Amino acid sequence: MPSYATNMRLKFPILALTLEVVTIVLYALFVVYDTGDAHGHDGSHAKSNTTQSTSPMTLYPMFQDVHVMIFIGFGFLMTFLKRYGFSSVGINLLLAAFGLQWGLLLQNIWHMHEGKIRVSIDRMINADFSTATVLISFGAVLGKTSPVQLLIMTLLEITIFCINEHLVVEFLGVSDVGASMTIHAFGAYFGLAVARVLYRPGLRNGHEKEGSNYHSDMFAMIGTVYLWMFWPSFNSAIADPGDPQLRAVINTYFSLAACTLAAYATSSLVEKKGKLDMVHIQNATLAGGVAVGTCADMDIQPFGAMLIGITAGVISTVGFKFLTPILASKLGIQDTCGVHNLHGMPGILGGLAGIVAAALGKKDGVSPGYQACGLASSLGFALVGGLVTGLVMKIPLWGQPPDQNCFEDSIFWEDMSTTVFNAYENEHEDRLTHGDDSKNKTEA
Amino acid sequence: MPSYATNMRLKFPILALTLEVVTIVLYALFVVYDTGDAHGHDGSHAKSNTTQSTSPMTLYPMFQDVHVMIFIGFGFLMTFLKRYGFSSVGINLLLAAFGLQWGLLLQNIWHMHEGKIRVSIDRMINADFSTATVLISFGAVLGKTSPVQLLIMTLLEITIFCINEHLVVEFLGVSDVGASMTIHAFGAYFGLAVARVLYRPGLRNGHEKEGSNYHSDMFAMIGTVYLWMFWPSFNSAIADPGDPQLRAVINTYFSLAACTLAAYATSSLVEKKGKLDMVHIQNATLAGGVAVGTCADMDIQPFGAMLIGITAGVISTVGFKFLTPILASKLGIQDTCGVHNLHGMPGILGGLAGIVAAALGKKDGVSPGYQACGLASSLGFALVGGLVTGLVMKIPLWGQPPDQNCFEDSIFWEDMSTTVFNAYENEHEDRLTHGDDSKNKTEA
Amino acid sequence: MPSYATNMRLKFPILALTLEVVTIVLYALFVVYDTGDAHGHDGSHAKSNTTQSTSPMTLYPMFQDVHVMIFIGFGFLMTFLKRYGFSSVGINLLLAAFGLQWGLLLQNIWHMHEGKIRVSIDRMINADFSTATVLISFGAVLGKTSPVQLLIMTLLEITIFCINEHLVVEFLGVSDVGASMTIHAFGAYFGLAVARVLYRPGLRNGHEKEGSNYHSDMFAMIGTVYLWMFWPSFNSAIADPGDPQLRAVINTYFSLAACTLAAYATSSLVEKKGKLDMVHIQNATLAGGVAVGTCADMDIQPFGAMLIGITAGVISTVGFKFLTPILASKLGIQDTCGVHNLHGMPGILGGLAGIVAAALGKKDGVSPGYQACGLASSLGFALVGGLVTGLVMKIPLWGQPPDQNCFEDSIFWEDMSTTVFNAYENEHEDRLTHGDDSKNKTEA
Repeated sequence: MPSYATNMRLKFPILALTLEVVTIVLYALFVVYDTGDAHGHDGSHAKSNTTQSTSPMTLYPMFQDVHVMIFIGFGFLMTFLKRYGFSSVGINLLLAAFGLQWGLLLQNIWHMHEGKIRVSIDRMINADFSTATVLISFGAVLGKTSPVQLLIMTLLEITIFCINEHLVVEFLGVSDVGASMTIHAFGAYFGLAVARVLYRPGLRNGHEKEGSNYHSDMFAMIGTVYLWMFWPSFNSAIADPGDPQLRAVINTYFSLAACTLAAYATSSLVEKKGKLDMVHIQNATLAGGVAVGTCADMDIQPFGAMLIGITAGVISTVGFKFLTPILASKLGIQDTCGVHNLHGMPGILGGLAGIVAAALGKKDGVSPGYQACGLASSLGFALVGGLVTGLVMKIPLWGQPPDQNCFEDSIFWEDMSTTVFNAYENEHEDRLTHGDDSKNKTEA
Repeated sequence: MPSYATNMRLKFPILALTLEVVTIVLYALFVVYDTGDAHGHDGSHAKSNTTQSTSPMTLYPMFQDVHVMIFIGFGFLMTFLKRYGFSSVGINLLLAAFGLQWGLLLQNIWHMHEGKIRVSIDRMINADFSTATVLISFGAVLGKTSPVQLLIMTLLEITIFCINEHLVVEFLGVSDVGASMTIHAFGAYFGLAVARVLYRPGLRNGHEKEGSNYHSDMFAMIGTVYLWMFWPSFNSAIADPGDPQLRAVINTYFSLAACTLAAYATSSLVEKKGKLDMVHIQNATLAGGVAVGTCADMDIQPFGAMLIGITAGVISTVGFKFLTPILASKLGIQDTCGVHNLHGMPGILGGLAGIVAAALGKKDGVSPGYQACGLASSLGFALVGGLVTGLVMKIPLWGQPPDQNCFEDSIFWEDMSTTVFNAYENEHEDRLTHGDDSKNKTEA
Repeated sequence: MPSYATNMRLKFPILALTLEVVTIVLYALFVVYDTGDAHGHDGSHAKSNTTQSTSPMTLYPMFQDVHVMIFIGFGFLMTFLKRYGFSSVGINLLLAAFGLQWGLLLQNIWHMHEGKIRVSIDRMINADFSTATVLISFGAVLGKTSPVQLLIMTLLEITIFCINEHLVVEFLGVSDVGASMTIHAFGAYFGLAVARVLYRPGLRNGHEKEGSNYHSDMFAMIGTVYLWMFWPSFNSAIADPGDPQLRAVINTYFSLAACTLAAYATSSLVEKKGKLDMVHIQNATLAGGVAVGTCADMDIQPFGAMLIGITAGVISTVGFKFLTPILASKLGIQDTCGVHNLHGMPGILGGLAGIVAAALGKKDGVSPGYQACGLASSLGFALVGGLVTGLVMKIPLWGQPPDQNCFEDSIFWEDMSTTVFNAYENEHEDRLTHGDDSKNKTEA
């Protein structure tokens, strides 16, 4: 364990600062504000111009909703692990802070104007979106990777995401306004591929720290509820203004509501004695937001959205109950947060629903064939990209927590020996406040 | 206890799925988007049209504020019970998710256009509002009812709310922009009537689980602060655009600020040794938002709003200290969250303030007589509706927690035996992590 | 200790109610709505009129973001202390609720129209801002002061803040859109001066309660993440509409992102074994928002904002590690939350960056000389004002917690003996639920 800590001190600061300095140099060369004077010329991004004809700040409330989903929603959803809350919310912040800078660069290298990327609110929304892929994948490997490995995953995954997104959305013209395919399915299968490469036989029989306690589950519910509430913003933020955006909000609202009833009902049905399982409630209630993403701006009507939502809620809950154990035991995929059930299968469901909706003519100019290509491309890039990224992450140089220290903040965070729960777990051998002095901010 | 669990497995999923399927069928028949093409014809709802002349998304940030109040605010406010946090925030999500679907249907059957209900953001706000009545009543019976009973209460209460609201607001033309009468007083007295019917003599001397601990009180403060911050949105979301909406924001902001000082001062005054009581702070600081609701868009000026707020803060705190114990011991009304003090009396105060403001001519076209009728109608529907609903909920078929399992998540949630606090409470007989394996998501 | 409790009962309610009643009288005399009819005449506040030409509600979503920062952000950031969470979030609410009423009055006595202050959303934003100074100073004296002392500090600090702000912004024409100087540096040095006057030799060697535990650190992260997410709103809320506001959002977004990488890297670098320290992550990740405040609406380009952010992240982390202990031991300044590192030094950095940006011509009509005066004035008013305020707060009449009861909620809050952690700390002598009956809301 000392070797890991030493590794952090050398490798992590160097990597983080190097990435940040390189990013700043690239921003100095290529990134400027999208201020009004350039609008007349920027014919390549008509939607942004339309929006900004009113005000450059029109989308700002939507941006903040998405921002909350990324930093509070994803961050706290992963705090369900009883001893891994600091890393869940803290590393989530780190990865997203780097990812949004990197994503904004890579997403817009195809849209440069006079050699410059022009930052506007809608591009900040897209940059936030690009980080979501990484945070989904983070869920699959939560507790079993180091910050160094995760920064490398962020760099590679966002790069691959931007290539696939450009191919699917810009080149093939696929409709995926809420990104069921390009973010959720992509992020999930990318993360599962990484998890497969990083398979740990030593965790085959579980790990005593891989579980929740009462308050860690409560913190996770903060994440769940924020994701649930703001998902209509996620699915509508980059929709065309007016009716398409309104449809995206309404469809997501109803899909989530129907999904919630389905998730509760299914959870009670599959558990012994008909009780509810907190894992299902924290996750499967959100599957309706994922699954309605691709069709969100289409004319599927509220009841269509509700049918998608109820299906997603059932599939997701059943996945947690029956599929996750099989993935772990038969395929060697240890999916800590069950991202396959929340983002993977519902993301595919969303892609399939988009194909059907396109075939039924629910959105002008959208082809079921191209929609299918978009789904296939997203899955292909995710699996291949995840395998390659997993192999890079496995290079011993980066360091990786030993099995016995998985799911435990103390390997990466100071002062963890002083907390109540550790004290408790150590069978009361420690005085509760022992060592707290180093947290004391006013005395040496 | 096994019988209850078995009951859940059969009854709860069947009820939840049946309600959802019936709702989807009704939506397929009657609910469509409120897209622009129909606006020219929809003369029945002028306010909505006015708003949408700018953009269908104008009210979206307000909607999200209200959404946060419903799902985070109400949900976390009730997590103060030390062993009932999962149910508080989880069942809150379930009831609101069903309630908003049901409320949107029933609120708009009077406003159908060519046989269709047209969903817009302001109707989604109203649908969220309709769920608030249920969540208030939920507070009165918190810890003593099953999810099955609560889904039935949701169905009945929203139905009765919609009838009263239509009568009061549309038929009598009563002004109640922040719904002091139609939501807060209604929800509180409805819940108290239900609580009366479900009176449990076995809890006369309290229950060891009916209390808070340090961290459950902290979680509850998340709910309190969100309700406090976003209450100006609640009271102004459906106000007429422009100055009335601005007035509603300003009045609520100042009423809450003044109420907070009053609640703190009164809490210190009524407690021995002048200390503050967390129960008062969590609840009475919000009474100013309730009490200013009816007058929020009226020309009462900031100091008028502050007078309402300071009165509400005093009344509410005094109610918690002196009235709640009397209600329980003399009237057999066991009001878990003290909704009588937060929503009941301040709601009536709001209704009375509206009568006075109408008499003083603070809003054109508003009659003090009709305002009084609105208050009487809301109380009448609440009490009668609550009694009837309570009797329906009491039918033994639905199941109901035995006294000794009240205020405890473990009766409805899996794995509760494994948490720190249970371990602690069981006098350290359990190993902390015992049983956590079933929460382990990666291994069977 | 009984004497303190008695003091609270007499002094606190009287002071709180007196302040509120005086405020209401002043509001009745001087404060009205800023409704449309007066706009044509209000030439003194052009910006407000411009904004409101669209709608009086344009800034409302920005207002709510700032509101969340004040009440959730500041409130929860301070809950890191393991036994002081009620006071952190509760007293934060009390001080801000009074402060916004007082601030709105004092900030606008220079802008009265026909003897009246007209309340609009942008003035509510400014009122919220004025409370931020107090909440920053609160951080410096957290755990060592009584609510009575803190109400007095609120009254005096906001008064002094309004004088300095008027002098700097209105009289000298200094540009400080995100208030690095007038709020952050001012609030920090004011609080440090108060802390110096209230120096407690008895806490020289620390205090067993002055530390965090696992869950208190998690609650604090809620504050951190909300401040982090909404800081772009803080820095842009009162910027001129259009491009300046967009620039303020973009600069803050990128400054924070770069600062986060720097804070994580520096934290790992300065800690033994390269681990991360939660104190740094909770605070230093935010320094980029403080430091970019003055220049936020200037044409410094994204990479310029990132350079400011990375510098702030390094300085802040290094300050927590090396400077805070020296301030305490050598200068007698016991800075509980380390506000010197989060608001003090980054605030000065922001002021200096503004001088440089002005010298480089990054904003029309801004003079580096006047910017320097603005920084000097803010520091001068803060230090002198803080010393005087500290002396007033030291008057024995107000009462102040004895050393051994510092950092402990139980001195001001009821029922604290009944919580799990106390029970735990008392070596299991108390039954867990002992005394919970008085929290029981349904029985006397």
